[in-house]
Order: sequence, then C-alpha cells, then structure tokens
Amino acid sequence: MKRIIFNLFSLNFFTLTTDFSLFFRKSSFIFSSRQILTCVLFAVMLFLGVLSRSLLTADEGMWLFEIPPVQQVQSKYNFELTEEWLEHIRLSSVRFGRSGSASFVSPHGLIMTNHHVGASQLQMHSTPENNMLKNGFYAETLADEIPCHGLECIVLHSIKDITADLDEITKDLETNTAAKARLEAISKIEQEEANKTNLHCEVITLFQGGKYHLYRYKKYTDIRLVWAPEQDIAAFGGDPDNYEYPRYCVDSSFFRAYENGNPASIKHYLKWSTNGVKENELVFVSGHPGTTNRAFTRSHLEFQRDVYFPERLDRLYRREVIYSAFAERSLENKRRIAHDLDAVKNYRKRAIGQLDGLQTPSLWELKLKDKDTIAEQCLNLYSFYTDYCYFETGEAFNSQTFRLARQLIRLAQEKEKKTTERLREYREGNIESIKRNILNDSPIYEDVEILKLTDSLTMLYEYGYKTSLPRKGTQVNAKAEYNEMFDKLSPKELAVKLIKGSKLRDVTVRRKLLEGGLDAIIASNDPMIKFAISIDPTARKLRKKYEEEFDTPITAAYTKLAKERFEKLGNTIYPDATFTLRISYGTVKGYEESGKYIKPVTNIAGMFERAESMKFQEPFNPPASWLKNKNILNLETGFNLVTTNDIIGGNSGSPLINTKGEVVGLVFDGNIYSLSNNFIYTETISRCVSVHVDVILESLKKIYNAERIVKELTEK
Amino acid sequence: MKRIIFNLFSLNFFTLTTDFSLFFRKSSFIFSSRQILTCVLFAVMLFLGVLSRSLLTADEGMWLFEIPPVQQVQSKYNFELTEEWLEHIRLSSVRFGRSGSASFVSPHGLIMTNHHVGASQLQMHSTPENNMLKNGFYAETLADEIPCHGLECIVLHSIKDITADLDEITKDLETNTAAKARLEAISKIEQEEANKTNLHCEVITLFQGGKYHLYRYKKYTDIRLVWAPEQDIAAFGGDPDNYEYPRYCVDSSFFRAYENGNPASIKHYLKWSTNGVKENELVFVSGHPGTTNRAFTRSHLEFQRDVYFPERLDRLYRREVIYSAFAERSLENKRRIAHDLDAVKNYRKRAIGQLDGLQTPSLWELKLKDKDTIAEQCLNLYSFYTDYCYFETGEAFNSQTFRLARQLIRLAQEKEKKTTERLREYREGNIESIKRNILNDSPIYEDVEILKLTDSLTMLYEYGYKTSLPRKGTQVNAKAEYNEMFDKLSPKELAVKLIKGSKLRDVTVRRKLLEGGLDAIIASNDPMIKFAISIDPTARKLRKKYEEEFDTPITAAYTKLAKERFEKLGNTIYPDATFTLRISYGTVKGYEESGKYIKPVTNIAGMFERAESMKFQEPFNPPASWLKNKNILNLETGFNLVTTNDIIGGNSGSPLINTKGEVVGLVFDGNIYSLSNNFIYTETISRCVSVHVDVILESLKKIYNAERIVKELTEK
Repeated sequence: MKRIIFNLFSLNFFTLTTDFSLFFRKSSFIFSSRQILTCVLFAVMLFLGVLSRSLLTADEGMWLFEIPPVQQVQSKYNFELTEEWLEHIRLSSVRFGRSGSASFVSPHGLIMTNHHVGASQLQMHSTPENNMLKNGFYAETLADEIPCHGLECIVLHSIKDITADLDEITKDLETNTAAKARLEAISKIEQEEANKTNLHCEVITLFQGGKYHLYRYKKYTDIRLVWAPEQDIAAFGGDPDNYEYPRYCVDSSFFRAYENGNPASIKHYLKWSTNGVKENELVFVSGHPGTTNRAFTRSHLEFQRDVYFPERLDRLYRREVIYSAFAERSLENKRRIAHDLDAVKNYRKRAIGQLDGLQTPSLWELKLKDKDTIAEQCLNLYSFYTDYCYFETGEAFNSQTFRLARQLIRLAQEKEKKTTERLREYREGNIESIKRNILNDSPIYEDVEILKLTDSLTMLYEYGYKTSLPRKGTQVNAKAEYNEMFDKLSPKELAVKLIKGSKLRDVTVRRKLLEGGLDAIIASNDPMIKFAISIDPTARKLRKKYEEEFDTPITAAYTKLAKERFEKLGNTIYPDATFTLRISYGTVKGYEESGKYIKPVTNIAGMFERAESMKFQEPFNPPASWLKNKNILNLETGFNLVTTNDIIGGNSGSPLINTKGEVVGLVFDGNIYSLSNNFIYTETISRCVSVHVDVILESLKKIYNAERIVKELTEK
Repeated sequence: MKRIIFNLFSLNFFTLTTDFSLFFRKSSFIFSSRQILTCVLFAVMLFLGVLSRSLLTADEGMWLFEIPPVQQVQSKYNFELTEEWLEHIRLSSVRFGRSGSASFVSPHGLIMTNHHVGASQLQMHSTPENNMLKNGFYAETLADEIPCHGLECIVLHSIKDITADLDEITKDLETNTAAKARLEAISKIEQEEANKTNLHCEVITLFQGGKYHLYRYKKYTDIRLVWAPEQDIAAFGGDPDNYEYPRYCVDSSFFRAYENGNPASIKHYLKWSTNGVKENELVFVSGHPGTTNRAFTRSHLEFQRDVYFPERLDRLYRREVIYSAFAERSLENKRRIAHDLDAVKNYRKRAIGQLDGLQTPSLWELKLKDKDTIAEQCLNLYSFYTDYCYFETGEAFNSQTFRLARQLIRLAQEKEKKTTERLREYREGNIESIKRNILNDSPIYEDVEILKLTDSLTMLYEYGYKTSLPRKGTQVNAKAEYNEMFDKLSPKELAVKLIKGSKLRDVTVRRKLLEGGLDAIIASNDPMIKFAISIDPTARKLRKKYEEEFDTPITAAYTKLAKERFEKLGNTIYPDATFTLRISYGTVKGYEESGKYIKPVTNIAGMFERAESMKFQEPFNPPASWLKNKNILNLETGFNLVTTNDIIGGNSGSPLINTKGEVVGLVFDGNIYSLSNNFIYTETISRCVSVHVDVILESLKKIYNAERIVKELTEK
C-alpha cells in the first residue's frame, strides 16, 4: 500500500476565476464512480498519519527545477538527477501559448504538443471549405507551414531567487501597502531584467508568497503549424471517453519555431525514443501544471462548495446546452462552435467532479482540524462574488467582441499610468502580447457572437431581477446597472444591437482604435465600445474590492502559513502549481478498477476493437485514412500509456521522458482518479495518460506520409 | 392584414408546475429570431384597438364542443357546424394517456396518434436487443398487437353544466372555505355520477372557475400497439428542426382499443380522406390543448419571469447536460435515456422562448394597463416556491423509484380519509389509475435512476447551502431538512444508497406494499420508502401553503374577473386550455418568413433533399427502409402541412379534419411563431404543423407493407 501525502501549499485564488482557452482540457475532478470516493476516504484516513512526514515516498510532486527531487528519486529509483540532465530537460521544455505545455523535438525548432492544445490554431485556420480541426493538416514542405499569428512559445532560460529582496522592501509595511509595494517592485524588476537580458521576465509567486523567483524566458513569436491529425483520431472516443482508460488518442500536433524567417536553431531538444517504453520504467513529465489547491482552508473550500462551483456549473450547463443546440442546426454551425463546445464540456466535467468531492462529508471531517485564518474574508466574498464574475471577469458579456472592446479601452487607459499603478495584466511586459491579441485576425462569427452574448445577457437579466427580490440582496446593487441596460431592449435585442452594430470584428477597425488611443476610443460610436465603457466603472470597482478585501489579505495569510511550513521542511517540499515549469517523476504502471487490472499500454488493435463495439459511431469513428490503411499498420504498436506522474491541467502537451532524456510519450489526459490531484495526490489509482511515441511515428510514416518529419524526428 | 385578439382567460397555475411526460413535446414560445419579436410588437400595437370586440374574426380559439364557434365559422367560412357534425367529431376524438390527443380511425378501435405521443410505450417495450423507439414496430396480425399496461384512453361521452349547483353551495362562504366546499361537492358529484353511469366522470373548471362542467368519459383500459415507424423518419430533423418549417416527419403511430379481449367496436370514427387537402381549405383540429395563459396579470407574469422560468431552466439545463453525457457513453445508455432526453430538450426550448418573451420590455408596456388583484399572493410565492418545487413536486428527488414510493405512501394515507378530504389527485375516481401506475411493470433502470437522483439531490444540496448564506434566506428553512439528509452522505452516496438499496423497481414488491396498506408501508425497511416518509411532512406543509396562500386566492380572483367578462361577452368567447377536448378552425395556408414565402405543403422529394443537404447525418438520416424504397415512392406525395388553427401543447396527436368530417392530417407540432399561442394567438405567421394523411398511407403501403391497416383505414 502506497503512502498518500497532502501538499499544504496553495495558489493565488484569482487564477481559478479565469477560463484559459488553452487550458489542459482533460484534467480535473470527476469522482463519477464510487471508487474515487473510496480513494478520497482512503486518503483522508491516512492524512493524519503522514502530516508530519517530510520525505515523500509516493511519486508525488510537481517539483521546481530549482528545487528538484534529487534525494527522492535517488532513494526510490536509484537514479541521479544531475544538474546537466535537468538543464537539458528544462531548456527542451516549451510553454505553448498562455497555458499549454510542449517540447522541442528537433534541432530545427520542431515543437510537439497535443492536438487539443493546438486546437484553437486549427480552428482559426479553418474555413467553411476546409475544417482543419476535423480534417487535420500536413505541410508537405517548409514553405507550406502556416504562420500562427498571436501565438507565442517561451522557454525557461534562467531562474533567480529574489525572495529576500522583496521581503526587505515589504518588511515593515501593513498588508495592503505591502502588496502594492511588492507589485511595484516586481514590475520594476521585470522591466529592468527584460531590458538588461532581452528576455521575457516574470516574477513567479511560489509557495503562496513564501518564495518569489524571477523567471527569464526566451520567447518565440513566429510559430507555424506543421502537422495535425484528424480530430476523429486525435480525440477518439471524444468527450464520452475523456478521463477514462484504456484510451486510444493520437492527441498530438507539431508546430515549428522560426527566427528571422528561418526555422529556429535549437541546441536543447528531446531525442525520439526508438526503443519504446517498458512497464515499471522510470519516466518524467516536464511541463506547466496550472493550478492545484492542496491547502485551501475550511472556509475557502466552503466558499468553493457554496458559491464558486455551483455558480460556475450553472453557467457551464446553460452554455453547453445553448452551444449544442446551435451546433445541431447545420454542419457549418457545428464547425464554428466546436472548440467552444469542447471546452465547456470539459470545464463542466471538472467542476462536477470537484463539487462532488466538496459535497462529501468525509472530506469535511478532516478539514475541521485545519488552521483557518481567512474565514472572515471568505464570508465577505459571498456577498459580491457573483457581481465580480459577471462584470469584471466578463461572464455576463460572453463574446469575443466584448473582450476586444474591453482590451482596447483598458489598454488605452492603463497605458497612461505608471506600469506599477496598472491593472496587473497591463503591466509593461504584457503590452505586446495584448496588442498582438487585439490584432489577431482570425475570424469572429457574427452568429456565434450573438448566440453567446444573448445567453450571457439573459443570465445577467435573470440575476438582476433575482437580486431585487425580497429574499435576496447583494451589497453591490447590480440591479441599478440593469435598469439602463434592459429598460428598452430584451437581452436578445441588446445582443443583436451590440454585435450587429459593432465593427470590431474587422481587424482594421481595431488597429485604427488601437493606434488612435484613448481619444479615438472615447470618440468612437461603436456600440460595443460604448457599452464596454459604460460597464467599466462597475467592473473596476468590483475588481478593486475583490483584490483589497479578498485576494490580498488571503494571499498574505497563506504566505504566513507557507513560510512556517517551508522553514520547518525546507527543500523537501514543492509549491502548488502555478502554470510554470515543473518536473514530476513516476513509472509506467497499470491499476485496478472494480477488481479488474487495467494494463498500462494500449495498442492500435485495441482502438479498432473499441470502434467496432460502438458500431463506428461518432466519436468512435476512426478517420478514413486509418480505416483505409489498417492493413499496413503494425497493430501491436503502442497507442496510449499510463504512468504514476503527478500532473494537473496545464500539463497537456508535456513530454514524457525516460532517464536517457528521450521522449517516450506525450501527456494528454489523466484518468478519472487523477482529477483529485487538485486537492490530493494518490498513487494507487491516479494515472497520467500519454500518447505513445510509437503510434505517432507509425502514423506519420504509414498514414500521413510525413516523411520529412519522420526523418527530422529520428535523425541521429 | 388579420386581426389579432387576446383572450383574457387564464388557467389554474398549478398545471404549470408539473411535467407531463406525454405533453405535446413541440409546443411553446421560442422567439428565437427577430420576427417573433416583431410579431409580438405587432400584436401589442393592435391590442387596444380590439379589446372591446367580441366577435373574433381571426381563426382564434380553442372552443368548447358545448359552446362551439358556430356563428364565427358560419360568417367567416360559410360552413354550418351542426350538432350532429360536432357530436360525431367529439365521439371520434380520444384523449391518449394523461395528456395526449388522438382519434378513432376505424370501426375496429384503431387509434391514430403521434409517434412522439406513443413514444413512452415504445420505450417501455424496447429491449437491449430491439430498440423499438428507434426501429419502429408493426404487428403483422391482430395477435401480434402488444398490450400497453397502464395506458388509458378516454372519449368525451357527455357534458353537463353544473355551475349553478356549485355556486349555490359556495355562495355565502369565505374563499378558503368555499374552495373546500366546492372540492367536496365536486368529489361527491364525480363519484355519484360514476356510480350512476359507469363512466369516468370529471368536473372541469372552465373560465378560471367561471364555469364548471361535468365531463363523462368512456374509458378504454386495454390499449395495444399496432404500428409505429422508425424514429428517424417520425422525428426527421430531430431536435434541431423542431418548431421549424418546412418539415418532413411521419410523426404517427397506431394503437387499438380492446374490450373484453376483442377489438372495440366503434360507431364514431373518422374516415380517411383520399382526396388530400387543398390550399385555403377549411380544416378543424379536435384535441386536448393543455395550458394557455392568455390572461395572467402583471404580477403573475413577473413571477414567471423572475422565478418560474429561470428556475425551471436551471433545472432543465443541468438535466439536459447530465442525460446527454450519459447517453454518449454507450449505445445502451443512449437507448435507456432517449425519451427523457428528448422531453428535457423540448421543455428547455419552450422555456427559453417564453422567458425571452417575458424579458422583452415591449410586452410590459402593455401589461401596465392590466387589472391586478393578485400582486400580494404572487409576491408571497417568491419566498417558498423553490422549496415547494423541490419537496412537493419532487424536483429534488427526480427518480421513478421516489415517485413510486411517494405514491404508495400517499395512497395508503389518503385512502383512510374521506374522498373529499384527500389530496385532489387521490380522490376516489383516480384511485384505479394510480394503482395501475404503481403496478405498471415496465423496466426501471438502476443506472438511470442513480444518475437522475444524484443530480437532483446535488441541486438540493447546493440550494440548501445557498439558503443559509448571509445573502439569502427563505421563509421555510429548508436547510434544516438537509442537515439530516447530507450530514453523513454526499448526494451521490445518498442516491446510490437509496436506489441500490430499494426493491421498489420490482413490481411484486410494490404489489405487496400496495396490498399491505399503511401498516406494511410503515413497517417497510426499504430505504426509499423510509426516505419518502421522512420527506413527506415538509412536502405536505408546502403543498398546503401553496394551495392556501396562492392557488386558492388567485383562482378566486381570476374567477371574479372571468365571470365579469363572461357576463359581458357570453357565448362568443372560449376558456383557456385545460387538457380537455376543444375544437379549433382554420385553413391550410403558407406564410412569410424573412421576406420569403413558405408553401403550406411539403412532399417526399423535399425530405430527401433536406437529408442530402445535411449529408444524411443524424438526425437527418432517413431510415434504411426509406432509402431502399425511394424509387417506388411517389415523390410528390404530401408530407407535412401548415394550417392557421389555434393550438398548443396537448394538441399533439389531434386529427386535422375537413368539412366532411374526414381526417386529412395529424397535428404534431407548431411552427416557431405558434409558441406564442400560450399568451397570444397571431394568425399572420403562427401555424399548426400536421403530418399529411397521404404520406402515412403511402408509407404504410410501400415501406411498411402494412396491408391489413391500409385496408382497415380505407375500406368504405
């Protein structure tokens, strides 16, 4: 029986309130069977027994490269993580876009990630004639590789601990002043370092503020699409098989980093393993796990159970239904909404699973024993959180047109301030990315925009009236805002007016407003610009309230707790996930489910069998290219595999690496039990699911005839 | 330009709070395009001009057979509705199950209704090997016809106005006492009449209590399934094409009434029209429209906008998502949940449409002028309506197992009371139907039950915690009930315990409890029985509160208003729909949509074209039997048609009848604009959609080889 350990550090709550469009779409809690409850109970029972242990003996941990699990791996697996080995892996690892993982796999800038991580790029380049997401893509020559405007990849070049410097600056200050001073110092450091090194610099908050590390990234801004398979094989089994195992997905795609118009020359990249991977073999995952919350206090978890997840799920349920109904009306509708619909389904699954966990009394029996210094802040948040989500995070104005309008307005407003005074996402180091996003010329569909905005405004309308009922009442009187909004027009009429009337879908209009700055924006008659301006004071007021009354004080409280623990346990622990580079270790290992042993590696034959059992009905329909070429494929080729690595959303696209530093797989999912990794890591049945490198190579060769890529991957 | 008239009578609110499983699945508001808004505006503008008119010149009205629109039809269409003609139509009309419409179409008891009205019967007789809902069914011989246990059909035999008798009884009493006295008198009359006539007797509340009519029904309890086509052609275009036109659905099925083991001998039945139907031809619909609310006051509509529809939609959204996800996991799951999923999708569409209408300011400008004597009662309802739905209408315990447990308990409890003291649905005349329902042995699936109950208990859990937050608080402290319920188990754990532990899915267990009566039930250790007993006091308390504080007083207020209007306008008006037999008139007529004229009749060729445009993808895939026989079909055969008849949910399965009293079509849907018939009838673009009799006959002959039925339908 393996040990199960809790990690007691937690992450800035704010990251939870944002939807990351490229966020690992497969990962989170589901708890959809009794086993997961058993597993939670089991973890809970063991909790007290392991609280004081500092040496982790399970394959737990999303470790920092700067505080690697050298001792743990050495003692458990007798393998030495040398500085050289670690540096090579770190420099081969890529953060893809805002929150995906990836790796370099050739000296010529070839980047491997998941199909689902690259999906928004495929979506953007699709046309009514060629649905690239569905049909896949292969660039026969270098010249055919498709530039992905707005997409950025970064590599973690170097790291510096600046905790002491920041502590020095804030040591005698009161919480809110300290937070502001720290933010100012961070902005300053980031900017100075960027100027000095010509690298993209970010200060990372680790151990909930227990540590601050300066990360210097090399940034690649010319990324081109090289290859992607058909969605029917990339996501074989689709949504229904998501979080399940055995699986059969070629969830992979290749991109390429360019510099000065030529393929980037890359020193550190992962060689392709041609020897496969064996059961019980030691393997590593190097990627960017997004968020874990292994140390939320009781009151914080209560807030999640009472408000955060139920309200999030209410929004996800309605969106999933509205998007699905739209998709069903025509094939073109389906193409346009496909990516949004996939994302919503995945968020919904994760949320249901986590809420289920939080509604399980046995979890709360444990939590009674927690220290809880943030109860007051959590209780206060109940009173304005919905308004905050609707107005500031924009849930009530769900449309690309609104988001662009807000970015144009805020960028113009914030640029007039000192970088340290700005909203954090508009600090100097981020400006270029925001501009690129505004000028990204991928299509925005009028009908999809009206659909989304109508639904979210309807939700706002409902909420507006709800809040004025006798039985309810929020501190922020949102109703006042609606009087103006809905007095003349229904939500649908307003949505039609804003979307049909707006010219923001035209990138040349956006460019003009961007270049014209604040004056041009204030003078604009665009209805969405005017609407977003009218909303902004309310939104900013809520943002300020959220930061001052919740985010800043709880961060300080968690920091204090984290520092205490860090002092006690030192370098034997790892921080909660922060969308930054981590390494986890584990082995290739099957597991038991309902008394049945599930083997760790599937093969091509298994995929065809599953398709047959589902009568080849979507999403169990392999593409024509696979059916046609079945006879020339080696049916024994490894397809997917499971390992014990500790992963979470954001790890999608991470390379699975053997001790020789070769890539043996491509992480794309976790099994249903891994979803609990948000709060608890359990080695017994929690598994990381990867695409086997063999199936990628076999299909590149025999199905996609991608010889130039095969050669590039396998050349010595 | 046609006149648009409002009908100012409204219906008992209670009918709105129940899901009728056989309820016309196609009808309600959608307003999903701007046209419908235009149409509402148009209606609103005309409203003041027509308020004082008593002669309806549009094809409006769901008329009583006892107060038929003789004058209107005579003056507009120069056709005389004779007593003889009306009696023949009335006695040919059938109420199918609790809320579907149908008609006799042969002297041997052959009943025609929609495929979707008969769907739950097809579902019940399906097995993992033969999905009858999907594959259709044909009984080659009489002996092959499948008995449908628990299904009842009734025919309106005779009618008596008892308003004066009841008014005499209640004339000097205070509202609540009067209501009770009236109920007692009604129960007594129903029972006495039933004993006297050997007919099923019901007192119908018309004109919101302005009139009480005693309806005596002949009841058929041995109903057998004769024929149903494949679902792919019955519901061609599926959910996406629902409420749209042109359409191509063979939404029909045949059943047969038996008496004493032989086909019932039927004097009044509709002959099959062999001459088709012409544009502008006068046609009638005789059926059982369920509910219209054409006279809700401003406060009543506000309640619907603020609470009723938003809360209903929240529940429908989550169910649609949960059911869809379940369906996607395997073909067997899909079969098991298909009927529930279809129903939820349809309810969702209707609710979205109606809420959209209520969120449209132009509607409210009109409503300012309404008399409103029930504002206080509506406001009071806000405070306990959710609890009422969750506990009394059972939304929080969504499962067949719970419903059976409650029926067993309440039947045992209520039977010990005088029939006049009982909950209305347990009055003596209903006891046999309830028993038949309890002993209905169609399969109940454990996994589906767990799925549904888990989700609805999760919703209850969320609500329980929400109500104890500082920002909310209901008058009924529901939270107290949850302390016990969820203190030890999560919603999922509780659902698993209740469903897995219960033996109620076994009909022999139910029979034993039914026969054992209250003692056996109290002594039962069945966890669901125990659970339902523990819930019942809360549920009954809410039921009592709802009836005493809302339903009874508003009924009285509406009655007063209705009587005033009835006295003024006499027999020139019709009451709101009440799931009882009505007749409406209209003509076969196309309409304009987005500037394009839509022809009234489609044909078989059009169906094949639509299928091709959707690449024959589900639900645009005609079944193999149609593809195979395309070459022998007459492609010009009429498929569906639209008429101006005033219909609403419940009319599904109604015959469309020509002046000769022949059946020319089978009502199965309304177009999107007809959804507004709930509040407003508009002749300009609101249309009733029917299956053309020709396509039924053509397919019976050439596709289903159902010669004995063809002969039966067409013999002179």
